[in-house]
This record gives sequence, structure tokens and C-alpha cells, in this order.
Amino acid sequence: MIDPSTEKVAVGIVGASGYGGVQLVRLLTHHPMAELTYLGGDSSAGQPYTDIYPHLTAQVDLKVEPVDLEVIADRCQVVFLSLPNGLACTMVPTLLERGCRVLDLSADYRFEKLDTYVSWYGAERHDQTVASEAVYGLPELFRDRLRQARLVGCPGCYPTASLLGIAPLLKQGLAQPQSLIIDAKSGTSGGGRVAKTGMLLAEASNSLGAYGVAHHRHTPEIEQICSHLASQEVTVQFTPHLIPMVRGILSTIYATLRDPGLVREDLLTIYQAFYRSSPWVTVLPAGVYPQTKWAWGTNRCFIGLETDPRTGRVIVMAAIDNLMKGQASQAVQCFNLMLGLEESLGLPQVTFYP
Amino acid sequence: MIDPSTEKVAVGIVGASGYGGVQLVRLLTHHPMAELTYLGGDSSAGQPYTDIYPHLTAQVDLKVEPVDLEVIADRCQVVFLSLPNGLACTMVPTLLERGCRVLDLSADYRFEKLDTYVSWYGAERHDQTVASEAVYGLPELFRDRLRQARLVGCPGCYPTASLLGIAPLLKQGLAQPQSLIIDAKSGTSGGGRVAKTGMLLAEASNSLGAYGVAHHRHTPEIEQICSHLASQEVTVQFTPHLIPMVRGILSTIYATLRDPGLVREDLLTIYQAFYRSSPWVTVLPAGVYPQTKWAWGTNRCFIGLETDPRTGRVIVMAAIDNLMKGQASQAVQCFNLMLGLEESLGLPQVTFYP
Amino acid sequence: MIDPSTEKVAVGIVGASGYGGVQLVRLLTHHPMAELTYLGGDSSAGQPYTDIYPHLTAQVDLKVEPVDLEVIADRCQVVFLSLPNGLACTMVPTLLERGCRVLDLSADYRFEKLDTYVSWYGAERHDQTVASEAVYGLPELFRDRLRQARLVGCPGCYPTASLLGIAPLLKQGLAQPQSLIIDAKSGTSGGGRVAKTGMLLAEASNSLGAYGVAHHRHTPEIEQICSHLASQEVTVQFTPHLIPMVRGILSTIYATLRDPGLVREDLLTIYQAFYRSSPWVTVLPAGVYPQTKWAWGTNRCFIGLETDPRTGRVIVMAAIDNLMKGQASQAVQCFNLMLGLEESLGLPQVTFYP
Amino acid sequence: MIDPSTEKVAVGIVGASGYGGVQLVRLLTHHPMAELTYLGGDSSAGQPYTDIYPHLTAQVDLKVEPVDLEVIADRCQVVFLSLPNGLACTMVPTLLERGCRVLDLSADYRFEKLDTYVSWYGAERHDQTVASEAVYGLPELFRDRLRQARLVGCPGCYPTASLLGIAPLLKQGLAQPQSLIIDAKSGTSGGGRVAKTGMLLAEASNSLGAYGVAHHRHTPEIEQICSHLASQEVTVQFTPHLIPMVRGILSTIYATLRDPGLVREDLLTIYQAFYRSSPWVTVLPAGVYPQTKWAWGTNRCFIGLETDPRTGRVIVMAAIDNLMKGQASQAVQCFNLMLGLEESLGLPQVTFYP
Repeated sequence: MIDPSTEKVAVGIVGASGYGGVQLVRLLTHHPMAELTYLGGDSSAGQPYTDIYPHLTAQVDLKVEPVDLEVIADRCQVVFLSLPNGLACTMVPTLLERGCRVLDLSADYRFEKLDTYVSWYGAERHDQTVASEAVYGLPELFRDRLRQARLVGCPGCYPTASLLGIAPLLKQGLAQPQSLIIDAKSGTSGGGRVAKTGMLLAEASNSLGAYGVAHHRHTPEIEQICSHLASQEVTVQFTPHLIPMVRGILSTIYATLRDPGLVREDLLTIYQAFYRSSPWVTVLPAGVYPQTKWAWGTNRCFIGLETDPRTGRVIVMAAIDNLMKGQASQAVQCFNLMLGLEESLGLPQVTFYP
Repeated sequence: MIDPSTEKVAVGIVGASGYGGVQLVRLLTHHPMAELTYLGGDSSAGQPYTDIYPHLTAQVDLKVEPVDLEVIADRCQVVFLSLPNGLACTMVPTLLERGCRVLDLSADYRFEKLDTYVSWYGAERHDQTVASEAVYGLPELFRDRLRQARLVGCPGCYPTASLLGIAPLLKQGLAQPQSLIIDAKSGTSGGGRVAKTGMLLAEASNSLGAYGVAHHRHTPEIEQICSHLASQEVTVQFTPHLIPMVRGILSTIYATLRDPGLVREDLLTIYQAFYRSSPWVTVLPAGVYPQTKWAWGTNRCFIGLETDPRTGRVIVMAAIDNLMKGQASQAVQCFNLMLGLEESLGLPQVTFYP
Repeated sequence: MIDPSTEKVAVGIVGASGYGGVQLVRLLTHHPMAELTYLGGDSSAGQPYTDIYPHLTAQVDLKVEPVDLEVIADRCQVVFLSLPNGLACTMVPTLLERGCRVLDLSADYRFEKLDTYVSWYGAERHDQTVASEAVYGLPELFRDRLRQARLVGCPGCYPTASLLGIAPLLKQGLAQPQSLIIDAKSGTSGGGRVAKTGMLLAEASNSLGAYGVAHHRHTPEIEQICSHLASQEVTVQFTPHLIPMVRGILSTIYATLRDPGLVREDLLTIYQAFYRSSPWVTVLPAGVYPQTKWAWGTNRCFIGLETDPRTGRVIVMAAIDNLMKGQASQAVQCFNLMLGLEESLGLPQVTFYP
Repeated sequence: MIDPSTEKVAVGIVGASGYGGVQLVRLLTHHPMAELTYLGGDSSAGQPYTDIYPHLTAQVDLKVEPVDLEVIADRCQVVFLSLPNGLACTMVPTLLERGCRVLDLSADYRFEKLDTYVSWYGAERHDQTVASEAVYGLPELFRDRLRQARLVGCPGCYPTASLLGIAPLLKQGLAQPQSLIIDAKSGTSGGGRVAKTGMLLAEASNSLGAYGVAHHRHTPEIEQICSHLASQEVTVQFTPHLIPMVRGILSTIYATLRDPGLVREDLLTIYQAFYRSSPWVTVLPAGVYPQTKWAWGTNRCFIGLETDPRTGRVIVMAAIDNLMKGQASQAVQCFNLMLGLEESLGLPQVTFYP
């Protein structure tokens, strides 16, 4: 039994060399109750971590080690998995069995029904029992369940921004669920530290385009939680776009109001109440719309909204840092909850603007 | 009577120092049938044009002159007005009377009903007769009328991209007009050469946000043409976003199909037919979505689309260069039509990628 | 007498609405031994600070107040002045007299001899006595004097990066002082939160150019400290360039070695020794050259170097965040020293990469 | 014998899928005297060219073909080779023998003495006879020889900008050759269409760093021509930097003047005279320094300069588009000369700013 009130928790990161990994390294080396004891990665095993990320010279003194579950379980009480989809599910059963608590940043444990995973991700799965135990790592919606979790399936970046923007609408029955359209925009770091031609500065800079239209894999993840919130099956339109910037996601959400008489101020009041106990969600004043860079390097989600009496719709805008609240810092927020720590511990509050 | 088959046409630009102005200067100095005889602008009157734009050193040898309608009418057969809203309407009646043909790049002559202008732009107008004569300068929809026009109200940048994406849907009755949602994204040059804090590289770079939500002035312009195309009153949801890049607009358009059985290939065929005689619209192959930089520095509009059988919607994406097809080169395209020239004359066809 | 071991120090910021100001607000609101009691600025007086910087919504609850020296002196033990050049010198004598300690981020108190200031900044000065007391706020070179300082003249951004790169060369007599050439590159935030056409994203993005060639005002500041280090009069060549990015400075420094037999490893050893007690300077391993983004949002300076046996020169590269180590966080580092606090207190150590 | 006055010249491009290749495709499809008859590339052989570059949809109707020298020689009178270093030298002897004229954009034929190539590029070479025939493709310096050339070794991007900035200084004996320091800055497209982690937008954006310090392969190429111009062996200091932008190179050149009494206006007069017959070099007025984006998409080189009487140095700044004057459009300029055409034919004159 981990008691972080008396001693630091031994944590490990598998997949430390990617962008999710390096955020976790940065966060956990400065976290007052965590001790980073293991960095794993097969492709870079053996390398000093600062060879991969020289900006950490003189700050991080660990080597990347081969991924060996026995070693991990011996050395770590909590394990963060930051790997491509389809790998975590080969490791998690063993790690749980050996007594580790696990936060998985891939898609492997985000779905209640593995059927959904299989049909959208195109891979077989045989770990429904383990998957059933996983808690969806969006603390603003599942805070209580996370406090007991052994296994957390951390949300995708797009679902985080989108669901935080949508939740009050559906939970309070304010909008027609089938009218939901999410036009999302992301910086290119969402593609990970993978050398792809389309992600070169020369290609992605000065330009903008949609991708995965009508087929992006974050769609069923958003729909699962929306259905849960609305207590009915919800289908959403989700369109991601690549923006010429490094970090940040903005989800612009369109929904038809059930009561077209609702005005902006009503909805802002409802949103503020909904997120009253959520220190990481900032509902902006009337007329202020979020800029993604306000969230840069923080765990914060900024939400603004507007109603349009001409069309009867509400437009909600939610902005996050895709690698932080959309990935690594949200995982640390879950880690805090799992260990009974203050939800905000060790997480950066405010960016350096501009 | 201008006969460009035998001699060059004398053209002038009022408002030459802005971004629209410098595109026009660039285009018209290289246009085989135009001779640039006048550059006007009150704030920079007296300056050599290369003092404002040193990249034209040794290429353009004109000075900016004060705005004097007599001088303009004496020296120019065709006048391009590239001014803030509300100024053109004070000049156009005189210029027309003096025999000039006019292309106005502001909002002043875009509306059939000046009431719409007055209610969205908040200024009085007393020139309904002149305004009634103006042709909306979107050649793909109003080519024939432009051939006779004395006065052209050139479209806004957002309406150009949005309407080219929407037109086949409404004209052919394929979509439910009231379901139209336009989520548009623009580079910052759309704000013009005006020093505003929010447009500084330090502020606008690395970030993304919406503005003018539910209230942007391009809304009624889009609605006017949509209503015309659908032969019914249409209200659209239009949300512009500022993107950290210089040029380019992408309009992502959502519409509910009347016949949910229509598939992508059907729609692409319809779009290709619709734009068969329009050399500046490129309908992309199935599965290819436009990138704004493909249109950089050209008069081209790229259109891609996708259907979503799960939701019954079509998603159309239209990309242009906001300062070119969205502003200056489209005006020159109209100019070509007005003078009976080849529609493509003097207009750049293909960008230098990347 | 301030005793920060027992109570927080009351601090104020004059000029809070600029980029230097907002960094200071961010740093001082999170500093464990500072209490921000005053934000001053004439142009925005009366406004809630979050109206100017909405990303601080729910984080900062202060209003901007008019600049009144009596009020400031009553309320603050330490005052940061973040104003255009030529204003601090009208305030500092009064503030010192009233018992405040002052850190000035402008050029007013950087020069030992006011003659130099007068000839490069073109303004009269009559406060030589006060100016003589000021300590140059580069802790790596003047740590001991800063511990006693009542008045600190905080360095310019370019001088900080350049001098940290140059200091070991001149102090140890390794390079010929008159051979020094500094080719410096800065992000556009160095121009401050001032709406200038040339700093618009539309203009400054996708481009690069030099400015102030042979005449930039940071030249005499660099020369003053170089002369001090070399114990002889030194003239340097300094050329700044504007880079299409928000933050960061890289100074590429060229110098002819006195002993052309010195190799890279020798020099790295000397640099490491020179900065052994300086927690904010990271000398990089052989073959690693600094990237400005490694310093983003931190107080760190990264230094790399290379020797060229073909030419007998050393090339030193020093990278900082221009608004942090080049401005605000360095001022807080000085503040820590002035108050006998740990030099690193409250300063961000590591960036979030990428 | 090619007679372009009567018929178009059949041209081919080997290595058409890279950035150099796509510029050539764009230029040659719009060149009035060229007919593009062959696109070659082993990795993409068989693909429609628009699959690789969809922005050319409906504009270019060629497929990429395998590289077969017989086919090329049968079909092309002039061949552009746009390949990685070390490949052209395996093809050129055959192509010349078969009667083709060749422009090579790699480093293979830039060096008079293959020893230099071998020592900097680390590959054996056995074609000194062919190499001796090659003319260095910098028209401003070798215009006459290019008119007769069968084989052109087109310059690197950095050497083009640097040598155009340096040439008047050395040719007229104005500067001390050994004092030359070139601090060069390039957009990331210079790295080619190669998926490398460091060139991702996520990594290269918002940052700046030097690379290849004291060892970059463009050094000997610059030194070869400098030695030629100065009629003595010259060693230069050359430091390239990667800038967060797509296109553009700025070379900032430092040199000690032989006569420190020379002032800026003297040197500008000398530069203007030197480039009087060079339509692609624009010497800027006193006090104007070039911005790289002024050259975007054109074949132009902008030069500005400043003298510093305090240090006795001149600072010359030369800006080009690295893919155009630094690569593809300069090759077409050479092609024009080789064929007795107007030097400017088919080349873009002026960019679209901003």
C-alpha cells in the first residue's frame, strides 16, 4: 500500500522518448511526491536521456532502459505507459498482477466495450476483464472513480478538449445530442515525435487542412462519454484540423439548444457551477473566447461560449495544451487522485505569455 | 469605350498601401492588358511606393498620390477601390458619372438591400440606386452579369471560400439550407496592414482562437448569396478563427444531406460538373482534402469533400489565398470579364510549394 | 530592514502591462517569498489586470493603478520598473530616498558613465550620483555586488546572452578583444507589446532580416562589460536580427584565439569551471549547440562552442529566453540575491519541450 | 543542335519528387521555350506526379518514371539532375556522350579540383575530365562561360547568397580576404523533402540554432570562388543556422575594409556598378536591409550593406529564396544562358508580399 504522505512514490515511464514521455519526465522530476526510478523504451534503450533531449543536460541523469516488465514491477509502484496503440494491452495484465498501478496514455483502455476498440482500431483484444476495470482518466467527470483506480485509460487530446466543452450541455440536457458538431484544431505535436513528411516545418507551416474527416479514431471515444452524459446513444460529427503551431487544441463545438431562449449569461452560469470544484477548468467571462496559447505548458482548460439567437445554437470553445491537459499533465492529475494527493500537486498553473 | 484588344487599359488603385493594394499593384504591373497609371492613398500621399514596400525596388516607379476624384477620372478607365468600409460609397457615384468602371473591394457594394448593410455595418447610406447596379464579384456564380458591369462589389474573403464550397449543394438542392455551419479559418493578413496588438507575431503566433462568433459581418453576405442559390431565406452559422499563418482561408462546411444515400463520389461528380467552366476551381480527387498553402499566391480555390453516412452530413472544405482569390486576384478576374478579356489573363496559376 | 526569512517581501511592478511586466507578474505571484502588492501603469490605470491578460482569469486579482510614487513607496519594499527608457531615472531617486530597493529593467541605470547613455540614447541626465550606485544586474558576473545593491540596472536581452558567451574568453585572456563579432538573433517579443506594422505576424512571419546594423543601442552596454572583463577598452561588432518566432535569443560570437592551439575540449573545460557556481548557465557537451527553445520560459542560458583550426577562431553560441533570463526572470534572480535568498528561488528550471 | 528560337526544348528532370524537383516542374511547365518530357525518380516511379504534389491537380499530367539513361537521352535535349550528392557523377558522363546538356543541382560538379570534393564529401571520384568541363552555375560571375557550357554545376544555396554578397568586395580588392565571416541563416526547406525529426514543425518551430559549425560542406565551395575572385587562397568562416521558416536565406557577411575611410555610399555605388548588367540582383538604397521574404518565390537576390567606422568593417546582407535563386530558378537562369535565350525568360520577378 502506497502512502505518499510519508514517502515518495516510485514511478516509471515506458515510452519515455516521445513527446508524451518527455512531458512526463519534466513533470515527474519536479513533482514533490514522485521519484522517477525508471525510463523505458526499446528503440533508444541504453542511451542517456539527455542524448535524446539535450535541453535536460544537467537536469536529468537517467538512461533509457529496455522494456522488461519484471524490472519495472520491481522498481516502480506506479507506471505510466506512453506507447503507440496496441502495446499497453500486452503489458498491463502482468503489471497489475505484480501490484503496480498503471496509467495508460494510449487508446487501449479507453473503451468500456472492446468491440468499439476492435472496430475502430482494427486489432484483436482478449483482455475484456482487465479493460472493464479501467477508469476513463478525465478527472472533471470521473474524479471519484479515479480515487480507487488501479488502471486508468487516459483520454485522447481531442476528446479531452471536446468533452470538457460538451459535458455541461449534455449532462444538464441543454442541447440536442444529435446536433453536436465538433470542429477541432490541433498543433502538430499531436502527431508525436515521428518523422513524417507532412509534419515537416516546410510542409505544415503556413498552411492548414483537415484530416481524418468522418473517420478519426477519437470519434467513438467522444461518443462513448457523450452517450454516458446524455444517457442515450449519441453520434457526433468530429473533424480534426492540423494547425501550423506546435502545441494547443481548440475544439469549436456547435449544438442546437433545446430551449432557444437560453442566453449566453445563463449558460456561463451553468458552466461555472458545473466546474466549481474543478480547479483546472477556467470558464471565461462573457465575450472572451479562449486562445490556445493561454494554456501552453499548463494543465488548464479554458472555456468560452456564445449563443446565437438567429440560429438557436450555442457555440462552445474549449482550449487546452494537447500534450499537457490533453495528455501528460492530465495523467499526473489522475495520478494525484489515485494516490489521495491534492489534485493540483506538481502541475503548472499559468503559462508564460506571450 | 475601352477596347483592350488594341490598347492597354489605364487603371488606378485607391488605397494602394494596404495588403489588398499591394497585391493589386503586383498583379496589374504584370498584367498584359493593364497599365497602372495612378496609386492613391491619403495617409502615404507623396511617398514613393517603394518606400512603403522596398521589395518592389527597381520594379515599381510610382508615387502615392492624394485621393482626388477628378485626377483619378482623368487618368483611369478602370478604378480599383481598396479602402476601409464606408469610403467607397462616397466616391463611386462620382467616378461612375465621370465614365470610370469601378471594382470596389470593400463591403459597400456587396448588398442588394442597403438595409442589410446598414444593420450590420451601422452606417447610413443614401445611394441605393447606385448600389442596385452593382454586381457581386464572384465570377463562378455571376460570370454573365459581370461581363456587363460598370460597378462590381467584390466579395469578402470568407464569403468567397464559403460560397464556392456551398454553391453546388444549394443550387442543386442537395442539402438542408438551415443546417449550414461554416467553421472558417484565416491567416492574419486578413486583418489588413493595421498595427493591432492582437495581430503582432508575438501574440498571434503559436495560437489559435475564434472571434466575432455569431456576429461576424461576413454572415449576411454569405446568407444573401445562399438565399439566392436556394431560392429561399437562408440563415447560416458562421464562425471565423484566426490561424497563426500569413495567408490562406479554409472554410469547413457542414450540411445535412436531403438524401442521406448520396455518397462522396456522387457529390464529387456533381461538383466537377458545376465547376466545369470555371478554370479557377479545382475539385480534388476522392480522399484528398485541401491545404491552404496549395493556393498561396494564386487565384485558385481547392475543394474537397467527404460524406458521413453515420450522421447523414456532407463536409465540404474549400481553400483559397485570402488576399488573392479572396480579394485582389478575384477583382482582376472580374476586371478581365468586364473588359471581355480571357478570364485567366495575368493571374498566377500555380504556387511554389512548399 | 527586510527579513524574508520571516515574512514575505512586498513588491510592486511599474509598467505591468508590457511583456516584461506580465513575466514579472507571473513570476512574482508564484514566488514563495514575494507578495505582489502593486501593479502600476498610466495607460491602463483602472483596468483589472485580467482585462489586459485574460489568460490570468481566476489567477490574478489586481487592478492596474496610476503611477504615484508616494503610494508605491508606502506599499512596496522592492519595486520593479519595467518602462520605456528615460522614465526610470525620473522615479528612482525618490523611491530610493523613501527606502525602496529598485530593480530597473530599462537602460537608464546600466551605464557607469552617463556620458555613454547620453550619446547613445540622446537624452540629458542629471543623476550621476544615483547612477553610480547602480549595480549591473548580471548575477554571473556581479553576484557579490548585487547582494548589497539598493539599485540594480538590469541588462538588456542581447547583452545578457552575448556577455555570458564572451565572459570566459575575455576574463581569461583567451581571445583578441578587438576581433569580437556578435551576430545575434531574437524573437519578435523583444520589440515589446507595441503595435508596429513591422512586428505584425503578417510581416515578420516567414522572414528574417537584420536591423540597427552598426548602431544598435545594446552595443555600448556590451562594450562596457567587455572592457571591464578585458581590463582594456574593447570595441565590438554587434548585429541584431529579427527571427520569426516569439521568444528566444541566440548570440553567435566569433573571436580570434590568442593561442590557436586551443581545442574545443580545452575551452569547454574552462567554461565549465567559469560557471561552476552559476546554477543558471548550462555549458553543453562537445558537439552540442544550443537551440533557443530549450530555454523557453526558463531563467537558463545554454552555451555551446566550437573551435576552427583552419581560421584560428572560436565560435561561441549562447541561447536564452529574451523575456526571462534576458529580462524578467533575471531581475527576479537579482531580487533573490539582494534579499539574501537562494539565487534560484521561484524561478522555472526546465521548459516543456517541444 | 538546339535552336530554341524555332522550337521548344525537350527537358527532363531526374529527382523530380524533392523540393528542388517540384520547383523545376513548376518553372519549366510555365517556361515559354521548354517542354517537360520526362520526370524521373526511383522511389516514386510509376506514380502520377499529382499523387506526390496534389496542389498540381489538373495542372501537371505526367507520371514519375524509373531512371533509365537511355530513355532520358532519347527524350530530352537538356537534363536537370536534382539528386542527393554522389549520384549525378554516375550519370553525367553517359548523358553528355549521348548529346544531352546537363544542369546538376548537387555538389558533384561544383569543384574544379575533385580533391576538394573528395576530402569534404568523403567519396571517391574518377571523372576529373568531365568535372573539368563543368561551369559553376552562378550567372552573375560566370555568365560568358555558361553560354558555352554543356555541363553546369549549380551552386549550393548558401554559396549563392554569400558569393553575391562578397563578390564586389573581393573582386575590387576592397576587403581583407582572411577577415571574411559569413553568418548565414536558412529556412528549413534547405534540408529537402526528407522526414527527419529535427525538421518537424514541432521541433524546428519557435526555435533557432547553428549547425555544422566550422565544418559545413558549403565552406570549400565558397572558398573556391572567393579565391578565384581575390586571386589568392582564401579561407572563410562560415556558420549556418536553421530558422523557423520555410524558405529564404540571409547571409550576414563581415569583412575588414582595406581602406577604413570608405563609407556606405561609396560601397553602394561600387555594388550597383558591379551588378549593373545583372537583372536578378537588387542593390538596396542606403539604410534599407533585405528581408528574406522579399525574395520568396522569385529568382532575385537583395543586397544591403552598412559600414562601421568604429570597427573598420563592412557588413553586407544578401537575401535569396533558397529553393529558387539558391537552387531551381538559378538553374533555369543558367539554362536560358546555355540556350542563348533571354536570361530572365520564364522566371518570376516579384513576390506576393506579405
